[in-house]
Amino acid sequence: MALRSFAEVSALAPIGPGQFEAAVDSQWTIGGKPNGGYLLAVLGRAAVAVGTHEHVIAASAHYLHSPDPGPVGVEAEVLRSGRSASQVHARMLQDGQPCVEALLTTSRLDPAAEPHWGAGAPTPGTSRYQESIQLPGVTPTGVPVSLAEQVDVRIDPDSFGFSQGRPSGRGELRGWLALPHSEPFDPVSLLFAVDAFPPATFDIEMTGWVPTLELTVYVRALPAPGPVRVLQKANVIDAQRVDETCWVWDSRGRVVAHGTQLAGIRLG
Amino acid sequence: MALRSFAEVSALAPIGPGQFEAAVDSQWTIGGKPNGGYLLAVLGRAAVAVGTHEHVIAASAHYLHSPDPGPVGVEAEVLRSGRSASQVHARMLQDGQPCVEALLTTSRLDPAAEPHWGAGAPTPGTSRYQESIQLPGVTPTGVPVSLAEQVDVRIDPDSFGFSQGRPSGRGELRGWLALPHSEPFDPVSLLFAVDAFPPATFDIEMTGWVPTLELTVYVRALPAPGPVRVLQKANVIDAQRVDETCWVWDSRGRVVAHGTQLAGIRLG
Repeated sequence: MALRSFAEVSALAPIGPGQFEAAVDSQWTIGGKPNGGYLLAVLGRAAVAVGTHEHVIAASAHYLHSPDPGPVGVEAEVLRSGRSASQVHARMLQDGQPCVEALLTTSRLDPAAEPHWGAGAPTPGTSRYQESIQLPGVTPTGVPVSLAEQVDVRIDPDSFGFSQGRPSGRGELRGWLALPHSEPFDPVSLLFAVDAFPPATFDIEMTGWVPTLELTVYVRALPAPGPVRVLQKANVIDAQRVDETCWVWDSRGRVVAHGTQLAGIRLG
Repeated sequence: MALRSFAEVSALAPIGPGQFEAAVDSQWTIGGKPNGGYLLAVLGRAAVAVGTHEHVIAASAHYLHSPDPGPVGVEAEVLRSGRSASQVHARMLQDGQPCVEALLTTSRLDPAAEPHWGAGAPTPGTSRYQESIQLPGVTPTGVPVSLAEQVDVRIDPDSFGFSQGRPSGRGELRGWLALPHSEPFDPVSLLFAVDAFPPATFDIEMTGWVPTLELTVYVRALPAPGPVRVLQKANVIDAQRVDETCWVWDSRGRVVAHGTQLAGIRLG
């Protein structure tokens, strides 16, 4: 089966003002469930389509119901259209049932901007792309990760103990991410990038599915071409939920996205 | 002037199904602009009022227009009502103009739950509440911070260099927060707590107003009574925006809230 590009799997067909059809790809899934960042990226595409600014800079999604792979409806409404930024409400529905609700702020990211200060971000991993280990298409507990056969998720060797039942206990996964056909990242695909890695809790204790309940992404800069470095980090496991932080650096080493998510987990 | 309680300044008057009136307090402001976390807490109260679950566990707000102190309308709509969680869309309007849009997930936090793992969170400051320095009612650049005369924002002495023009450069403010009349925190007031501190960028470089563009809060546990410890931390300043992370610990030292925000800043 030929790899489908991110542009293809996240494409929208306009069917009316602020109304689109999309098709959730059966391969961008974990255990048959579509990846949450992928779904948010589809809504990001809709936000840019209806809005007056070309780049998503902030997106927050709450996940109501996991859609099945196949056709979905997408609705997007501009809430405010300002000079420097606009806000959009977008949702994904399937068979009339809301699946994902999101608020997005769009603006224009200046390709000439330079970061002013970044000492508050952690440091990415040090392994080279070629040395990192490609995530297999199945988790250690046997859950199929079709997504890992579509995108290139590579884990630093010193983050990869979980796959042999030896998590480090730090709750951190470092590595690299590339899209199919090495498609360059842009602000829409960065919405996916912050949710592309396995749950960082795998580096603490192996569990089944860790469904995203809320995902917020800040796109901080236009990414340079090439694979991105990713750090997925668990913060606190409490009340059968975990909050995780994700950092994404482009090939120049610049922070291009910061994600935070709350997910369900059968621990604690 | 008598201090008004948080319950008073965030109170809602129901005027119809999913419709409320509220009054933005003129004192819960910085430079005359209402605090963003305070506004989100008002929407959190509305989400709990319309929903079937008693505690906000995740809230994401996008800020469209800063309301003036005074009457505002609040609308809240249940998007999905599930067994263990519900999702709500809430907005604040003034004179028909949308000011804040938010998505909220509500659930029930079990008072008997114990944290399972927390090594991914940073550590709070070490100063005692009594040793920490109360934030004055005006910033070093002369902006009035009425809010600091309503709530008790106390900064650790080693985080307080910015007030004498000696920021540490770390981009971190540590300290304590208490509500008026020592009102105990709850999930709604924790939505305020994650935005109560000055911008952590003050510990890098002094600027004027740092308006919140997006604020996401995860309430991780029911807080024990007493003041909460707060760490407000800047991550990256780029493209005239900063993303900041906020951690809130209760008097037992448990992480009770995690906030992340994107704000505008005239730097970079």
